[in-house]
Amino acid sequence: MNKEMYDKTVRFVSENKYMRDFGLEILDIDTGYAKGRAAVTDGILNPYGSVHGGVLYALADLVSGIAACTYGNFASTVNGNVNYLKPAMNTDYIYCEASVVRNGRKVSVYDIKITDDSDSVLETGTFIFYMMDSKV
Amino acid sequence: MNKEMYDKTVRFVSENKYMRDFGLEILDIDTGYAKGRAAVTDGILNPYGSVHGGVLYALADLVSGIAACTYGNFASTVNGNVNYLKPAMNTDYIYCEASVVRNGRKVSVYDIKITDDSDSVLETGTFIFYMMDSKV
Amino acid sequence: MNKEMYDKTVRFVSENKYMRDFGLEILDIDTGYAKGRAAVTDGILNPYGSVHGGVLYALADLVSGIAACTYGNFASTVNGNVNYLKPAMNTDYIYCEASVVRNGRKVSVYDIKITDDSDSVLETGTFIFYMMDSKV
Amino acid sequence: MNKEMYDKTVRFVSENKYMRDFGLEILDIDTGYAKGRAAVTDGILNPYGSVHGGVLYALADLVSGIAACTYGNFASTVNGNVNYLKPAMNTDYIYCEASVVRNGRKVSVYDIKITDDSDSVLETGTFIFYMMDSKV
Repeated sequence: MNKEMYDKTVRFVSENKYMRDFGLEILDIDTGYAKGRAAVTDGILNPYGSVHGGVLYALADLVSGIAACTYGNFASTVNGNVNYLKPAMNTDYIYCEASVVRNGRKVSVYDIKITDDSDSVLETGTFIFYMMDSKV
Repeated sequence: MNKEMYDKTVRFVSENKYMRDFGLEILDIDTGYAKGRAAVTDGILNPYGSVHGGVLYALADLVSGIAACTYGNFASTVNGNVNYLKPAMNTDYIYCEASVVRNGRKVSVYDIKITDDSDSVLETGTFIFYMMDSKV
Repeated sequence: MNKEMYDKTVRFVSENKYMRDFGLEILDIDTGYAKGRAAVTDGILNPYGSVHGGVLYALADLVSGIAACTYGNFASTVNGNVNYLKPAMNTDYIYCEASVVRNGRKVSVYDIKITDDSDSVLETGTFIFYMMDSKV
Repeated sequence: MNKEMYDKTVRFVSENKYMRDFGLEILDIDTGYAKGRAAVTDGILNPYGSVHGGVLYALADLVSGIAACTYGNFASTVNGNVNYLKPAMNTDYIYCEASVVRNGRKVSVYDIKITDDSDSVLETGTFIFYMMDSKV
């Protein structure tokens, strides 16, 4: 990934108030790829003591959206599909990796994987994006 | 829906810190059905001025989860699948209705629909739940 | 739906060898909508005596694909997602209705519903199409 | 995978008329895993000369269903979700691999991948199964 594109993506993330409030930290970005994490706080736990499914999804949506923008165009989510495999409990962070499956001219597909501190897979899923004409 | 079950569901929601922080208001609950809404605030808008997809999903996840508990047992999300049809812009609230498609002994399916103040459909989707043995 | 478009769609279906071999009968077509059915034969039953899930899906894929072409352009399936609610048993036909949820310039979404002779819902689902430039 | 379970699975497949008519050949089976292929014939091509999406799905449904039975219990499909990445053209066979993502007591999840003769990925997807009490 070239430096200009890298810098643009990092700036885009850092200027996004929702991502900051969400506590998203980007750990890695490359072409067709992003990895991020968020800290687990009491406020996002459900009554069973695990992270709310909506929070896991939001992490996956943000990280896959960032990955989808690494080719230089903005991307708009068409469909998100996630499988809950294991509750997110007893972990300080939730991590998400998003990897390109298909980089289409108009429609792109990304797989996501959410893991915990001990690298157990908590959630898998697929996000489909419509690739916009506007540049990052 | 009998009053006891109704009261239990309402109490369960009101005691959930994440739902309160999310700003979820329950508008209607019946057996196999729930409707709720959340106010749109600046903090949940993306750079294009529309509500983040993760927030729309979280609303759908909460409301369908409440609907899935109206038969008396807790429910755990197995899969969530959502289609983004229209950006959530220029609306004071986002609304979600969840309706049972299949109420199984072990696996249940709910359809969700997210709308805005003018009743435009913003998102449709399906949530699959594993029905737990524990009682609400 | 205008007569020319209707005639084109019907001809397209009747000239498709796979649809004929499948035994697809179109019952109704309108703009953004199609309904079809197929006879249940011994060859499509699984060992439990119900119709194979792949056959139900194929019916939904064909009928939603026909519905997606009713606006005048060919459509290519991007994603198919189906929920199996009830086994297809003791029915002479399986029926599928596909209805537009979103007719986009580039990406369209259709809901499908598969029913049996007694109008029980066997399967629900969603198909996402990329709308091609080529005309029907 | 022990020999008895292997033999049972192979026999189950060979006795299934629909799978035989479909032309399914099992290439590999192991615990939580199956790989199969089917020959591409004129009868399963759409007007664009590529394999019908319903046929690709049916292959994935069969192979993931076989994989889901390798732990010793029958499995019933709850949800199938597939992404079409590339048309299946100019290939003698379509291949499908299914691998366990989560082997639950009641609900299991499998990822599938469909490839062609030159190992290009044509389709990815996820199948969710309800694990039945009955033994293979």
